[in-house]
Amino acid sequence: MRSSFYRPSLAALALAGLAVTWPAAAQFARPDQAIRYRRAVFTLMNTHFGRIAAMANGKVAFDAKAVASNAEIATMLSTLPYVAFLPGTDKGDTKALPEVWTERDQFDAAAKKMQGEMAKLNAAAKSGNLDAIKAAVAATDDACSACHDNYRKQ
Amino acid sequence: MRSSFYRPSLAALALAGLAVTWPAAAQFARPDQAIRYRRAVFTLMNTHFGRIAAMANGKVAFDAKAVASNAEIATMLSTLPYVAFLPGTDKGDTKALPEVWTERDQFDAAAKKMQGEMAKLNAAAKSGNLDAIKAAVAATDDACSACHDNYRKQ
Repeated sequence: MRSSFYRPSLAALALAGLAVTWPAAAQFARPDQAIRYRRAVFTLMNTHFGRIAAMANGKVAFDAKAVASNAEIATMLSTLPYVAFLPGTDKGDTKALPEVWTERDQFDAAAKKMQGEMAKLNAAAKSGNLDAIKAAVAATDDACSACHDNYRKQ
Repeated sequence: MRSSFYRPSLAALALAGLAVTWPAAAQFARPDQAIRYRRAVFTLMNTHFGRIAAMANGKVAFDAKAVASNAEIATMLSTLPYVAFLPGTDKGDTKALPEVWTERDQFDAAAKKMQGEMAKLNAAAKSGNLDAIKAAVAATDDACSACHDNYRKQ
């Protein structure tokens, strides 16, 4: 069991990207479920990215394998949340600002920017090069912050 | 960006399994963070497994690609939560019963059972065979329920 479990096929993992392309309305039965889902994704992404950042910033001893593993998880997670910013999910237990929906093109561009920087971080993490990882962490952090500054209640 | 983003390397993804083997205490600064993390994982796992179950049970039209993608995500997620059941995380915003810690071997076995069934579901999902998917969904659902019945407040 263990070996098949930890070694998913490349083809199947490529499919994971499809998560963002399915009909959004079919994915959540109620607005509060979409909100809860996207918040959970950000909780996990923050955890896994935060572990890398702590190593990049010297707060935790550098561990190349841990960086690679966390980067892979964070990258996968980065594909998931945006489909859950559905119309009608601007009210409720969310910090999302109305601009998510009124400036959707800019919001989506900011999301794609973060995804791109996270993918670069993932590539840097695979290389194990600490300087490259540090640069990619800084760029990813900037992309996270840019979106938080503009689209999330402080 | 897009192609590198959606096609993570097999080697790096194999590393993702290491998440469960790092020193647990190093992963969460506070007990409430561990609780929030594991709850977020279960929220996401429930969402992605639920989509597969809805198709297996005929509530949603069968879509082999969607099943494969959701199964891959759910399988990766299934590796994540158990490291967060740390000593001292039995109090707070959690439904975990004390037996998680007092019967840890059984709890871990139940977790491994779920992970194994989810991995089998992932394999079935890759095959695209609806009968195999249905059987694997039922087995995974049983494994989820067994753990909930014994280790989660109702």
